[in-house]
Amino acid sequence: MAMKALKDGLVDELRDMLSAEQQITKALPKVIKKASSTDLKKALESHLEETNQHVNRLKEALSSLGASERSKTCDGMKGILEENEDVLDKGEADIVDALAVAGCQKVEHYEIASYGTIITWAETLGENGIVKLLAQTLNEEKAADEKLTKIAATVNREAVATVA
Amino acid sequence: MAMKALKDGLVDELRDMLSAEQQITKALPKVIKKASSTDLKKALESHLEETNQHVNRLKEALSSLGASERSKTCDGMKGILEENEDVLDKGEADIVDALAVAGCQKVEHYEIASYGTIITWAETLGENGIVKLLAQTLNEEKAADEKLTKIAATVNREAVATVA
Repeated sequence: MAMKALKDGLVDELRDMLSAEQQITKALPKVIKKASSTDLKKALESHLEETNQHVNRLKEALSSLGASERSKTCDGMKGILEENEDVLDKGEADIVDALAVAGCQKVEHYEIASYGTIITWAETLGENGIVKLLAQTLNEEKAADEKLTKIAATVNREAVATVA
Repeated sequence: MAMKALKDGLVDELRDMLSAEQQITKALPKVIKKASSTDLKKALESHLEETNQHVNRLKEALSSLGASERSKTCDGMKGILEENEDVLDKGEADIVDALAVAGCQKVEHYEIASYGTIITWAETLGENGIVKLLAQTLNEEKAADEKLTKIAATVNREAVATVA
């Protein structure tokens, strides 16, 4: 489908993110299973719950634009998640938490960029309901990224300590 | 190759980013060609020059760890760039700049996450030369992202103005 106006771009990006969030709900349980740090497991479990809510918000945003609530395969997230799975498979026990944090931060940053775009476009189009709705999601993605940065400090030190 | 220690993870991530930066040097010229805003073209041309420098810094970092300067296909960046190309192909003239900015910000955020990880791991391992070298790159990626946010304000308004 050709995109002629910014609203078409907004719908396309919302559908891209709907696919991305749905992919994350499938990928996160595998990461949680592999992680050994209790803090990391808890943070990811809590983010998985948020992610289910993010899916609902995207459907609400599409519906408010009169667009069908279907997703469009997000190749960006697909690539990131395939890479993360591959890296986790190769990582041995001592560094698996460090690798999991790194992979999850790539996921978060993809989402931060994408929701940043969505909110800016919605603002330009005067779609204030979408701005308000998805600003909550963007804040949760940023908070998840910051929490991972804090957890990284511990799991990285432990990764080195077990080798020394 | 199995990764047993954090240094293995660091080498793997440096090789992933070497592939990512090399992919960007090939993809950016096509985006520059499609863009119509002079400010956007200039910003991307300047970032393309920086990207060539980023490739050199990654090779230097690998060499300083005694690792060969080879890349490992970055599936994350591959997915993002394929998606960007597809979106730009479908976007008509009025919104092509808005779409290009959005795609480039996804690229920048992947890099911000990855260099963030690399620097944190290098700090943990006491690899201060790599920290110093790649902190320059991380700062340039963040500056590129901020510049794109500023350009977005103009190109998004123009995208809407041409439709109205």
